[in-house]
Order: sequence, then C-alpha cells, then structure tokens
Amino acid sequence: MTTPGQHMAAEIAEQPAVLADLVTRRAEFTEVADVIARRPPRFALLAARGSSDHAALYAKYLIEVLLGLPAGLVSPSTVTLYGARPDLRDVLLISVSQSGGSPDLLEFTETARKQGALTVAVTNTPSSPLNRAAEFAVDVQAGTEHAVAATKTYSATLLALYLLVDAVRGGNGSDAAELGALAEQALHVPVQRAIDRYRFVNRIITTGRGYSYATALESALKLAETSYLATRAYSGADLLHGPVAAIDEDTAVLAVTGAGRGGTAMHDVLKAVSERGADVLALGSSCAEVPAALRIPVPEVVEELAPVLEVLPVQRLALGLAVARGGDPDNPRGLRKVTKTR
Amino acid sequence: MTTPGQHMAAEIAEQPAVLADLVTRRAEFTEVADVIARRPPRFALLAARGSSDHAALYAKYLIEVLLGLPAGLVSPSTVTLYGARPDLRDVLLISVSQSGGSPDLLEFTETARKQGALTVAVTNTPSSPLNRAAEFAVDVQAGTEHAVAATKTYSATLLALYLLVDAVRGGNGSDAAELGALAEQALHVPVQRAIDRYRFVNRIITTGRGYSYATALESALKLAETSYLATRAYSGADLLHGPVAAIDEDTAVLAVTGAGRGGTAMHDVLKAVSERGADVLALGSSCAEVPAALRIPVPEVVEELAPVLEVLPVQRLALGLAVARGGDPDNPRGLRKVTKTR
Repeated sequence: MTTPGQHMAAEIAEQPAVLADLVTRRAEFTEVADVIARRPPRFALLAARGSSDHAALYAKYLIEVLLGLPAGLVSPSTVTLYGARPDLRDVLLISVSQSGGSPDLLEFTETARKQGALTVAVTNTPSSPLNRAAEFAVDVQAGTEHAVAATKTYSATLLALYLLVDAVRGGNGSDAAELGALAEQALHVPVQRAIDRYRFVNRIITTGRGYSYATALESALKLAETSYLATRAYSGADLLHGPVAAIDEDTAVLAVTGAGRGGTAMHDVLKAVSERGADVLALGSSCAEVPAALRIPVPEVVEELAPVLEVLPVQRLALGLAVARGGDPDNPRGLRKVTKTR
Repeated sequence: MTTPGQHMAAEIAEQPAVLADLVTRRAEFTEVADVIARRPPRFALLAARGSSDHAALYAKYLIEVLLGLPAGLVSPSTVTLYGARPDLRDVLLISVSQSGGSPDLLEFTETARKQGALTVAVTNTPSSPLNRAAEFAVDVQAGTEHAVAATKTYSATLLALYLLVDAVRGGNGSDAAELGALAEQALHVPVQRAIDRYRFVNRIITTGRGYSYATALESALKLAETSYLATRAYSGADLLHGPVAAIDEDTAVLAVTGAGRGGTAMHDVLKAVSERGADVLALGSSCAEVPAALRIPVPEVVEELAPVLEVLPVQRLALGLAVARGGDPDNPRGLRKVTKTR
C-alpha cells in the first residue's frame, strides 16, 4: 500500500540531515577550489537542465558577486545541434546534473574540456558519465532520490555550489554552519493555508530577485510538474516589463521576499502587483514587510544562502497541493526521472 | 476615433520596409564590427530586459555558433543590487534596449565599460542615455514605436544583431538580402483560424529550439502582454524535463518548427507533446512535417535568420486575439512603454 507522494515526502524530510552532512564535508570542496585557484578562470559557464538549471542560475549569481567573474548559462544546443567549437581557454565550466546522465550536458562537457575549459561536474551520482567526462567532480551526496520531483538533490546542489564558490573565494563556510538546524525549522513552517488557498487556482506567477530568483524559478517548476498548474516565473525586474499586464484578481503571485538586497528590491514589484488586485503569497524571511494575502516565513540566513531554505516550504506546498488535487507527485503523468535530450 | 490595436497593426505592417532598409545600411554595422575585430573579445555578454532579452538570447546563439565565442546573458542585479565589479577585460558587452532608457542596463553598461569591457549599445533611440554610456552604438532605425507591445523594434533588433555578428565574422550580409520581400510574404500568411481557435484558450505553452527558442520566448511574452494569457515558453529540450507533465488536452502548444537543426530537433518534442493530447499549432518553414492541429507556414530563409520572419505571424496572432477577446493591445492594462527598474 503506497500513499500518494510518500517518496517525495520522505525525501523532503531528509533535507536537514543531508544539508548538515554536506557542511561537514567541506574539505572535499576545498580540494576542487584549490585547483580552480591555481588555474584561475576569467569567465565561468554553467550547464544544466530542469531543476539543476535553477541551481546553475543561483551559482551564476554567486560567481558574479562573490568571485567577480563574468558568467553565463550554457545553451547546449549551440554545441550539440549546431556544432559550435568555442575557444574555452580560461573558462571554468560547471556542469550541474542530479543524475549526471543527460546526453547533451555530457556532450557539451566533453567538448568544453577538449576546447580548453577547466571542467567540474556537480552531481548526485559519482559513477555517472558526466563525472567521468569532467576533469573534476563534486559529489552532492544527497542519497538516491526516488521521487520524480527533485527536492533534496536541489537543496543539496545549491549548498554544494555555495560551498564550492565560498571555498574558491577563501571562505571557511561558516555562514552555512547552522543550515541543518535552520532547515529543520523551515520544514515546520505551516503551509496548509496556502495549500487550501491554491486548491482551485488556475495560474500562479512566481517572482523573486537576485539570488532568490532561483527560488521563484524552482517554485514554478515544482508546482507545474506536481500539480500540472500553469505557472510562470519572472525576475521581479522583468515582471514589470510586460507580463504585469497579465496579472489580475484571478492571478496567484508567489513572491520570494527575504531579508537583503534582492528581497528589498521586491517591494516596488509587490506594490505594482498588489495594485492590480493579485492574490499575493509572500514567502521568505522578510515576508512580513510586504502587502500579502498570505505569508510563509522562512528562517533568516545570509542572503546568499536563503534559496537553500526558501525552497523547503515550497516543496511541501507542491506536495500538499498535488495530493489535495488528487494527484500523486511520485508518479506525475508523462515524466521519467532522467530525461534524455540532445 | 481610434480602432483597438491600430498602432500595433500599423507597426507590424511597417516591418518589410524597416527590414529591407536595415539591410541596405549594412556599412554602419561593418564599422562597429571592424572595431570588434581589432580588439577581439574572448567572451561576450548580452544585457537586456523584456522583448530585448529574447533578441539578446538570439544573439547569444549567433555569437556562440558563428563566432565560436562563449557568451552569457547578464543578470544586471549582480551589479546594480549587489555591487559586483567583475573583471571584464577581453569581454564584449552588447546592451540591447529599444528605448535605451532602462536604468539598470544603463548602470550595468557604465560599470562594464569601467571594468574594461568593449561596450556596444543596440537601440532604436540614438539619443538615448544607453547610447552615450556605451563606447559604440548600433542604431536599429525602426522609427518611433507607439504601441506598447514591441513589434517592428523586435524584428529590426534581431536583424541588427545578425548583421553585426555577420560582419564580425567577415560575412557580406547576403543571406539577409531578400528579408524585406520575405517579410512581406510572412505578413500575408493566414492566421485567422489560429485566432478563432485560441479565442477561449486559457493556457498556451510555446516551445522551440536553437535560434528559434527566441521566437518561442517572444511569442509567450507577446500573447501574455496583449491578451493576458497564461503563457510559458520552454526550450524543446527543457520541456521534456518536468513541464511536459502539465500538458494535457486543454493545453495549447505553439511550436516553432523551421527548416534546419533546431526545427528538426523539435520532432521528438512534438511527438511527446502530441501523445499527451495537446492542441499543437506548428509555426515555421517546416511546420508541415510535424503532427499538428493547425499550421502556420513561414517563408524559408537560412536558419539563423528564421526568427526574424517567424515572429511576424505571431504578432498578427497576438493582435487579432487581443481584439477578438475585447482588448486593446495599444493600451494594455498596467503597462508603460518604458519600464524603469533598477
């Protein structure tokens, strides 16, 4: 007898332990960071698909802000479909994939290594082809993930990327020290009112700025793949350029509003959104500061690490909503765990 | 007495002339291209917001494939909110903005120039602050755009970016020679059946791969901002990673399927989407080759230039649909022509 979403529920609950464990293995990140420091890149590229793409975007912000390096997300098709062979000397390529099995990431990583990039794989599968293709690898070590919807591998990947970038800048990871305990708190924030409120929702727009834009993107994907909702994420800045016109009284807006610069920059966005009558759910450590119909507080941590915690109540919301709507997020229609695209 | 959408209609109709004119002014692009060739960059960054962001993504593919340079889209907030000061020597920054007035792009461009980047503004407003901030500028010269929804400035910006990249690689622009005439043809492709079919649609997913991913993104934005639809664009590859679960018989899928590698790679995607019962509208020069409920053919041109033509019937669809649904795309609720974000 299986309960709908039992794998997803179990994996969500593992996160405090997974995150706490990852922090204790910081030395593994320092090793790779030392290589990067000895071969200092001038440009960073990040390759990923799906949830990992949101982790990659998070890492892009970390690299740009904390390391002062320009960075870009890879469009794998330029290499896999169009045969581009870019000069990648002085480039650091970080390929992010839970399974390490995505053929296009594999091909891109192999090509990038041949083209001179310093290649690092960040995966949850040390035996994966992607780990072999990259010169160096970082193990997310979240344990096997059975649910189709990524939960613990997403938060652990965020933290792994943070620990790697922090080690490259010479940090000691101290800002992450309490993440396990904070994650435990974040898992006990009530989400039932949000589940009830979204039981019959048709469209949800998610939004955030800065580091937490990744949270908005992951929230939209998680809700779409578990509850089949029409969701769409916008950076707070982009939302005001056109898409705000589609917001009205029938639109649910999930806004990520944490303490720090990204969250503060959301105040203007939420003012515009609220004036249009949208139903705002504010989620984050500073959610009390903005106009909202509903709020989900998240324990505060340094702004760079906020996305690791913010996603936890979102995962519980996605799980609860899927079940409330009669679905089984462990068996979403039409999805496999590893998607093969080229 | 004004007719709903009259500005948008007039500006859509101007595109054949605007594009043909732009091709004749290729020498202006060669001048900037010569500067770039003399100071060869090793990486490219593109900065933009809204529709221009889709043009920037298009340029990213051009730069990676045709110039063999790694490239990335800028997250302006890393500089404007978080104060990042990346080392941008050997970096080419192309800032794309119709108005040239977006404060965050302006600040990012000023900072990038100070940090050593070769900066080029691509705007439709030669007197703009962005043109002054960048070391070099390219004028899209589409004429004043009155409608809030960008149409002629989008297609002209795509072509301007193509002509610039083509000149950098030493091309003579010959592949673009007939674009004015082809655009005239593309403007006469029937779209009424699609307007009728989408009259009561609730959600539309748009998808494309390669160069035409930009078309999918722009289509989703255009439909959202004129008809207030819940739209979402996915690259064909990403669509299979999760979001496909949200597709069912009530989902309209607008798929861009042109001749060439991007369009061919869409065949697998459309097979998966069709198996889920989605209502597929195939748009592009090879739309006859895929399963679809409805097709909108587009004149064929080299694959790199297809997005310039593909967007034309989409604009007419967005205009027609907005009017059919009782709206006025010239006066969408809550939008201004220039959006100020920081």
